[in-house]
Amino acid sequence: MSKSIFYHAGCPVCVSAEHDIINLLGKDKVEVVHFGSDKSRIAEAEKAGVKSVPALLTPKGNVLHINFGASMADVKG
Amino acid sequence: MSKSIFYHAGCPVCVSAEHDIINLLGKDKVEVVHFGSDKSRIAEAEKAGVKSVPALLTPKGNVLHINFGASMADVKG
Repeated sequence: MSKSIFYHAGCPVCVSAEHDIINLLGKDKVEVVHFGSDKSRIAEAEKAGVKSVPALLTPKGNVLHINFGASMADVKG
Repeated sequence: MSKSIFYHAGCPVCVSAEHDIINLLGKDKVEVVHFGSDKSRIAEAEKAGVKSVPALLTPKGNVLHINFGASMADVKG
């Protein structure tokens, strides 16, 4: 199985969700992308359907928006 | 590890998220609770902090609200 990708922007909601997701799925099954330190991944995330962060892109290509930290507009700010 | 509990109310958003969650975590690690067929679990979910469905209650007691299907007020209807 390929990896899921967890996109976030460092907000408290994001960090809390990141810990939960890593605990549930296992660290080796999730790639974590922090937009604050890697803005170059924003376009890729939007193309995949990410509308807010934190969000989990599953290996099947579905996007699960988890809680609500910030909109992509805020991330690009 | 104890199980996570996935609460939902049968809406299309919920069912789609349910499939993703079961694929990611594994069927034996998630208990699925459908409020439509089991209204007696609503109080328990609210007590755990569930504010909208679909939501995943992790073994650590954290609630991850996934996408946004319906508020608990709608579920109680």
